[in-house]
Amino acid sequence: MKTFNISPIDKAILAELENKINLKTKPLGALGMLESIALKIGQIQQSLAPKIVNPHVIVFAGDHGLANDGVSAYPQEVTHQMVLNFLGGGAAINVFCKQNNIRLKVVDAGVNHEFDILPNLINAKVGMGTKSALTNTAMSMDEVNKCIALGADNVKNTVDTDCNIIGFGEMGIGNTSSASLIMHYLTKQPIEDCVGKGTGVNEEQLLIKLSVLKNVISFHGDLNSPLEILSAIGGFEIAQMVGAYLQAAEHKMTILVDGFITTAAFALACVIEPNVKEYAIFSHQSEEKGHHYFLNYLNVTPLLSIGLRLGEGTGSALVMPLIQSSVNFLTEMSSFESAGVSNK
Amino acid sequence: MKTFNISPIDKAILAELENKINLKTKPLGALGMLESIALKIGQIQQSLAPKIVNPHVIVFAGDHGLANDGVSAYPQEVTHQMVLNFLGGGAAINVFCKQNNIRLKVVDAGVNHEFDILPNLINAKVGMGTKSALTNTAMSMDEVNKCIALGADNVKNTVDTDCNIIGFGEMGIGNTSSASLIMHYLTKQPIEDCVGKGTGVNEEQLLIKLSVLKNVISFHGDLNSPLEILSAIGGFEIAQMVGAYLQAAEHKMTILVDGFITTAAFALACVIEPNVKEYAIFSHQSEEKGHHYFLNYLNVTPLLSIGLRLGEGTGSALVMPLIQSSVNFLTEMSSFESAGVSNK
Repeated sequence: MKTFNISPIDKAILAELENKINLKTKPLGALGMLESIALKIGQIQQSLAPKIVNPHVIVFAGDHGLANDGVSAYPQEVTHQMVLNFLGGGAAINVFCKQNNIRLKVVDAGVNHEFDILPNLINAKVGMGTKSALTNTAMSMDEVNKCIALGADNVKNTVDTDCNIIGFGEMGIGNTSSASLIMHYLTKQPIEDCVGKGTGVNEEQLLIKLSVLKNVISFHGDLNSPLEILSAIGGFEIAQMVGAYLQAAEHKMTILVDGFITTAAFALACVIEPNVKEYAIFSHQSEEKGHHYFLNYLNVTPLLSIGLRLGEGTGSALVMPLIQSSVNFLTEMSSFESAGVSNK
Repeated sequence: MKTFNISPIDKAILAELENKINLKTKPLGALGMLESIALKIGQIQQSLAPKIVNPHVIVFAGDHGLANDGVSAYPQEVTHQMVLNFLGGGAAINVFCKQNNIRLKVVDAGVNHEFDILPNLINAKVGMGTKSALTNTAMSMDEVNKCIALGADNVKNTVDTDCNIIGFGEMGIGNTSSASLIMHYLTKQPIEDCVGKGTGVNEEQLLIKLSVLKNVISFHGDLNSPLEILSAIGGFEIAQMVGAYLQAAEHKMTILVDGFITTAAFALACVIEPNVKEYAIFSHQSEEKGHHYFLNYLNVTPLLSIGLRLGEGTGSALVMPLIQSSVNFLTEMSSFESAGVSNK
């Protein structure tokens, strides 16, 4: 596997950052999580006046063999149709990126569709969807390694060089099933706790989904490394996000983790290189059932909990203004002294 | 008291709004609270394409006699110093309003300070702070009525005529104590559950604060109407916010309710005219201890819960981009049909 050189963050600047925050004209700690985000970004950038520069969201799309085994409310063709929707500007992620001045990139990581040549679609296609994990390894170990390298390359090559904050999103019918399986293997949580309604299966379909995933687990048995898990379960877009997270951390970017599926990719990246976690902010707790446990397993607190379960990186796009506010209060607010306000 | 003519919202458009949302290219309900906000604003504006126009935050400042009875971590002079900080642009609310294109207005509702003539400070001064509720009625019934009218006037006269969304904030050393008392009288919750650390008193000071508030309750006995509560407890800025909420609802504005103290004013407005609630979105759950119960009493769900306890309207300023996102997805996203995406 491609290796990554991810430094732990130098905490020497922490005391100075805390002091700067504590002298702002507000009660101590009164900005809650915005203060911890300001501390994190200040440390990542090693600056008392950090900046948000040229934020990006990259959406990785890929298809899953499992989609044809009755695990999703939508047919597999929706993956490529939604890719075209992203390119046409009509999806939720387009609307939120446009509103919040975020550059959006769309990657074909392995959609089961031959696209015409589309100038705005980044071609990183590893295959026409993964094989069904019910009866096969979803992808070969070569494909896993190729995905990780391609995901990393997309961060290196397609993101403007001054970008210092990035989120990843995904599209892939069936990929909540893959994420549930990854969660099960990583957290050792029973599969029942890892499975939710995804795009909106009903109770009957949920039982089918659960039964399919139990059969996947029986078929594969123990899986002990992140790469083994990726090979067995997939998907191409999840594996590419693993590489993307690792590359973003190597570049010392602030990383926005989105919902359930991106958390699965992020959790795999954390096993490969635990330092990646120091660069991450968790955008939101998804309505998808397993996400709450998954965030607990990672021991992290999400910013939003507003019932989102859409994917595409939408949660990360929606929190960008709050991230900007964290940096702005640190750099723009007066201190007690400069404003002539009595401190305690 | 000035009366207000607040219509209930006509729900006839609800089905059409729901249908429009459900045809967007996303799983049903996948945008969570953004969908309920879009429904609310669409109904308030009676439009399938609602708009956020010229958002405002008005900060009402007033002093509290109780501030000199040991209930706050900060001296009373901080109220007027912070008003000057708002006018100078250095407070948190300035930073967040500037970021999110919100017009900020600052009102002297009754600060214990003679300000020089300051062109950007709106003069609605009813007195030099309220009397201490420990030994007096905080203000006369005439002053209560005057405050409600002045708060309403500030919404009518100082807000640009095309503004259709508004939040209120407050500044007043000692006003978490007043808000705790108002909460106690309205919700019948024991005062212990209504009292928190405000700007950050320590454990010992918290016991003093609690003991002072118990003595206030003994002194006043039963208080049965919103106007009686306001007269007994104050403050000028809380009473002006009551008028402001009622006027904003009469004008069919979308109302953003901020934290603990603004919730106290809003809850009083709800008793006076329950229809006001249909116009409100709850910005956040404050870290102040009583706020969680208070929101439960109102049976509402806040958007954010990120440990804010600053006041000034900061929570409302911070959620404005999420409100904008709610309207944007409704007006800008493609439908399954227009994007050529297969629906279930």
